[in-house]
Amino acid sequence: MVLVRQEIGDVLRTHRLRRGQTLRQVAARASVALGYLSEVERGQKEVSSEILASVADALEVPLSVVMREVSDRVAAIEGIYLDDTYIPDTVPDAFVTEASLISR
Amino acid sequence: MVLVRQEIGDVLRTHRLRRGQTLRQVAARASVALGYLSEVERGQKEVSSEILASVADALEVPLSVVMREVSDRVAAIEGIYLDDTYIPDTVPDAFVTEASLISR
Repeated sequence: MVLVRQEIGDVLRTHRLRRGQTLRQVAARASVALGYLSEVERGQKEVSSEILASVADALEVPLSVVMREVSDRVAAIEGIYLDDTYIPDTVPDAFVTEASLISR
Repeated sequence: MVLVRQEIGDVLRTHRLRRGQTLRQVAARASVALGYLSEVERGQKEVSSEILASVADALEVPLSVVMREVSDRVAAIEGIYLDDTYIPDTVPDAFVTEASLISR
């Protein structure tokens, strides 16, 4: 089972490290407890929507970017390629027939 | 402040209605309490990662698709266009100069 909190934690940690900041700095800026932020980053605690918005703000990254990266990570785990639309793992019958004619 | 739980709720409700299913049917299939699922859909309760995965499964929609739609909704609220990369809301100085020359 893919757990979203794990991916959220990884994304937040990646952004924090990219900025070269410590847990303490981000926790202070986002007004959250250091221990709590640490657990969130390790995927051990669910993050509330308010705190997620606050941490993204402290990291100066739009919340939509955080969520987009989360969805990309979940997609990679699920093995699904996401472009603009969800592509089902099926091939239309007509195409299969046509392809088999070409290969003859 | 953009609240992710509100967008998650909207996305789950949209998928449920698209399937023509009731809260009761989805709650039973996902093994969650009907009242809880109703609150999640209305953005009144945070959903745990386990239950989110379970509800997405009951709706037969990949979790990555749910998260992608959530990120798209958050982006729309934030007014950010997301393609593959995050485009900052700035214009290079060189471009501004060039544009002002053209307009003369």
